[in-house]
Amino acid sequence: MTQFDQQQLAAEAWFRSLRDRITAEFETLEDEGESLPALTNAPAAPGRFVYTPWERTDHSGAPGGGGTMGVMKGRVFEKVGVNISTVHGQFNPEFAKSIPGADQDPRFFATGISLVAHMANPHVPAVHMNTRFLVTSKRWFGGGADLNPALPHEEDTAFFKQAFEQACDRHDPAHWPKFSAWCDEYFYVPHRKRMRGVGGIFYDWLNVEKEGDFDRNFDFTRDVGETFLTTFPAIVRRRMGLPWTEEDRLALLRYRGLYAEFNLVYDRGTTFGLKTGGNIDAILMSLPPEARWD
Amino acid sequence: MTQFDQQQLAAEAWFRSLRDRITAEFETLEDEGESLPALTNAPAAPGRFVYTPWERTDHSGAPGGGGTMGVMKGRVFEKVGVNISTVHGQFNPEFAKSIPGADQDPRFFATGISLVAHMANPHVPAVHMNTRFLVTSKRWFGGGADLNPALPHEEDTAFFKQAFEQACDRHDPAHWPKFSAWCDEYFYVPHRKRMRGVGGIFYDWLNVEKEGDFDRNFDFTRDVGETFLTTFPAIVRRRMGLPWTEEDRLALLRYRGLYAEFNLVYDRGTTFGLKTGGNIDAILMSLPPEARWD
Repeated sequence: MTQFDQQQLAAEAWFRSLRDRITAEFETLEDEGESLPALTNAPAAPGRFVYTPWERTDHSGAPGGGGTMGVMKGRVFEKVGVNISTVHGQFNPEFAKSIPGADQDPRFFATGISLVAHMANPHVPAVHMNTRFLVTSKRWFGGGADLNPALPHEEDTAFFKQAFEQACDRHDPAHWPKFSAWCDEYFYVPHRKRMRGVGGIFYDWLNVEKEGDFDRNFDFTRDVGETFLTTFPAIVRRRMGLPWTEEDRLALLRYRGLYAEFNLVYDRGTTFGLKTGGNIDAILMSLPPEARWD
Repeated sequence: MTQFDQQQLAAEAWFRSLRDRITAEFETLEDEGESLPALTNAPAAPGRFVYTPWERTDHSGAPGGGGTMGVMKGRVFEKVGVNISTVHGQFNPEFAKSIPGADQDPRFFATGISLVAHMANPHVPAVHMNTRFLVTSKRWFGGGADLNPALPHEEDTAFFKQAFEQACDRHDPAHWPKFSAWCDEYFYVPHRKRMRGVGGIFYDWLNVEKEGDFDRNFDFTRDVGETFLTTFPAIVRRRMGLPWTEEDRLALLRYRGLYAEFNLVYDRGTTFGLKTGGNIDAILMSLPPEARWD
């Protein structure tokens, strides 16, 4: 299974090129924010991504692929992680039961990009984006993007959601109603009786079965990445220069407590990764650089 | 079951009096630390406990007891919570399966004290202490105390553990080997491949079955409280005036990230409370006032 087919290679190449474009754009934002006041621990020069490759050994003991973690700490981005990974092997028997198409044959392949940005200015929302292509005895795309402001600006929320609504509508009129509701449901924090963020989209099991399914769903997944690139950086530019107070910063740090709670208590990817020995640094990349529970 | 018997009343009264003595001692420490440099957000005057009573409605819809949350934010104690609670009612059927003696009869009574202290000076360890008396169709005591230093001082660790070893030995020679090992095992953080703290004791299901069991195990549980009072404040006095650097503070905040990870991902009490609608503020009292993942 280490001989990848055209679909696998195409998906992997896309996620890598999307990573390159996003990190370049984020470094440009750091350059634009050069004159902003620096937080404690912020670097003197504009932030730059530091890349750390990692490899994994499969459950079976064989080489199982790996990925590259990219982390930048700067003045605009207090901490942002942009990870790509392409992993393959065999699911362990217990986990295989919970994965479509893996109950009979535990072999799998997964490639994707995962991004979480925690921003220095409390007026700039945090953001999460992830898209992936999975192959077991079935094949499917999944992913999503959602906005997580500590101090919500309705204009930003509307702009972000409208762009994703339009992206969805370009592919299937059923996508937006389904995927925006799925986002609201997935990122709900029961013990706080509220959503983690203000919404976006979440999708999974976008199957590749019939002729044309791969192209159609790959097109949609690429559009999610393109829409991220046309929306989030624009929101950052709009808000990164706004003045903020110590009270705003405290509101941000307390909001990040909620963000950490969701990721550590409920997020399927995080808890699965932590409990099954995944790459800790890549998994915990999503946690905020600083948070308060006071 | 709202008519409590002598054992229930005696246990509740002990936990309340222990709370009173601990909070008085902690406020004395705040007075002694009046001239220490203040962190951002620390009060101008020495910290004092603020008490918030709460009540719960049982699963069955009936009144189900409640508790008092006590929180102090000061110069010595960056954030400390000391909670007592006495609750009763019926476990919901799903949970009842996991509790000794509740599978046939879901009625329960629980009274206890729970304490977590996060300290301002990185040289002073954080500490956790909890003791409780449970009644289902069985009765038992449980609890523990463990030390959580960001910058461990071997002398403090040895002093703390030796005192608990001696306390255990006063009651049963089997206690210390069993309860110290249980602590090391319970507070292990698998994804970090390390213990949360440096140890202490953890015990549970110390049953009240035969004549004399209640008195013997209640004596031991009281001794755990007394040992906490003779050890932790002494460690605080020894370290609270030590100078510390920004690097020390960062080490403390990063260590607290690990502490939050353990409590949100693994701690049975926290995750159970969060997922079943307990008193959120009392449950999350254990989370650090400030933490970093950077």
